[in-house]
Amino acid sequence: MTPALQNWATGVQRLVEEELALRLPAADASPARLHDAMRYAVLGGGKRVRPLLAFAAGELTSAPQVAVLQAACAVELIHAYSLVHDDLPMMDDDSLRRGKPTVHVEYDEATALLVGDALQSLAFEVLAAPQPQLDAARQRDMLSLLAHAAGSHGMAGGQAIDLASIGHMLTAPELEFMHIHKTGALIRAAVRLGAWCGTALDAEAERRLDHYAKCVGLAFQVVDDVLDAEAPTATLGKTAGKDAHDGKPTYVSVLGLPAAKELAEELRRDALDAVAPFGDMAKHLAELADYITHRSY
Amino acid sequence: MTPALQNWATGVQRLVEEELALRLPAADASPARLHDAMRYAVLGGGKRVRPLLAFAAGELTSAPQVAVLQAACAVELIHAYSLVHDDLPMMDDDSLRRGKPTVHVEYDEATALLVGDALQSLAFEVLAAPQPQLDAARQRDMLSLLAHAAGSHGMAGGQAIDLASIGHMLTAPELEFMHIHKTGALIRAAVRLGAWCGTALDAEAERRLDHYAKCVGLAFQVVDDVLDAEAPTATLGKTAGKDAHDGKPTYVSVLGLPAAKELAEELRRDALDAVAPFGDMAKHLAELADYITHRSY
Repeated sequence: MTPALQNWATGVQRLVEEELALRLPAADASPARLHDAMRYAVLGGGKRVRPLLAFAAGELTSAPQVAVLQAACAVELIHAYSLVHDDLPMMDDDSLRRGKPTVHVEYDEATALLVGDALQSLAFEVLAAPQPQLDAARQRDMLSLLAHAAGSHGMAGGQAIDLASIGHMLTAPELEFMHIHKTGALIRAAVRLGAWCGTALDAEAERRLDHYAKCVGLAFQVVDDVLDAEAPTATLGKTAGKDAHDGKPTYVSVLGLPAAKELAEELRRDALDAVAPFGDMAKHLAELADYITHRSY
Repeated sequence: MTPALQNWATGVQRLVEEELALRLPAADASPARLHDAMRYAVLGGGKRVRPLLAFAAGELTSAPQVAVLQAACAVELIHAYSLVHDDLPMMDDDSLRRGKPTVHVEYDEATALLVGDALQSLAFEVLAAPQPQLDAARQRDMLSLLAHAAGSHGMAGGQAIDLASIGHMLTAPELEFMHIHKTGALIRAAVRLGAWCGTALDAEAERRLDHYAKCVGLAFQVVDDVLDAEAPTATLGKTAGKDAHDGKPTYVSVLGLPAAKELAEELRRDALDAVAPFGDMAKHLAELADYITHRSY
């Protein structure tokens, strides 16, 4: 990250962290073990990539910060719930996340299941809170978008495709299809929800923004696979090399390392082209595309 | 059920079944195994008690049927997701539900996890679909109510309290606290959402209706515990005597069978008193309170 982007990102991350801490139930409110575990799963970690994208997209439409913050937190809660469930033994069986024991290791499996379930509900509760800066019909449509992105045609569907792919060699298009669902759907939702908090975009601008989001979402996953193959566990904060070990197809296993890196670069350029016509309004969107492609963890 | 109530209930159940079949993804749409399992979890079974309550409450406010149907299906999808997750080995570890193998038995655990996750998303997607018969702000508030009822202060929280209670002797008030969350929250949501689809009730009427819902929700659970102690597995369509076997406190284990039956009767009378001032508009609400208390499965 450039120092200027880092500065902006730190501000957004702090806002999001404070808002999430407020919206999550108090750790001593009954049932305390569940609430404590929900806070453990969400707070004090994570790059908050989806909130950053929502805020950057909100700048494009001069969206009120308070409305974008609400949408960004809702998306991050969906993301956090998905991590808790993905880490369960019946899924990826991972014991390390953001440098800490995963929820089912720190608490227990049943609690982790309920944490994920309750975080999903909380995401919709947060997004449905009356928001004077938003038209109610717009807000309802945002709820519909997030629900669709999280569900069987989006993130949960991508997980199911991922499960079915274990031990199979996928083609590059099949791998792309999986990731467009598994991580892409929620990243696209973050970008669109951020923009929807402001003045409406015309259809062409909406299309460009969505193309940007699609490219950035895929680039994020390609870079994840590259880092999983190259970076040590201590840097990642999660178990390195786990996908390859589990027999999961990755961009590195399907394309090889050099071609995977080249694909990430292509997606970055595509993303930048898509938002270039927005000029300086899309400054943070462009800088985030660079960051997401060139990050080291 | 009286023949007249049975007739009305059959009509509602058919409407709900058809609407759920339409709103659920097609069984052959990718990812097909997930979608097939989602339909397996939701369709072709269940008493649809929550939809019946929503429709009965909608009659109180002359609510348009199409709006009530949408809300009723959303509540039923939340209920269906909770059953799939509750039946998992890490939770109640149940292999029989509605006379069929549970989802993780018929498919596998990972699929059952994703089925529950995706059904929860679908519930909010269904409730957020544009509904010309509803004011958008009202619809947003309905989404907020459902999310709250499903989450850690409602149903998911009740599950956590339930987990923590295994092997402990609870007092009657503690047991009530658990069930007000675990089953009560969603039943109250069904009643309130049905009513919210029509003309607004005044605060006193809203309070009466909510008291009715609270009593009916508890009566439902007390009767569940009585049936679990008395009825054979074949009649219940789920494993009889399981709660007692698992060391879970029930109304029968805490109060004894005669006092549990007396409590159910008291709750029924309380529920009827609460809606008596509504007169004939509350006919189906009153009849449902009778049915819920006197049902045999």
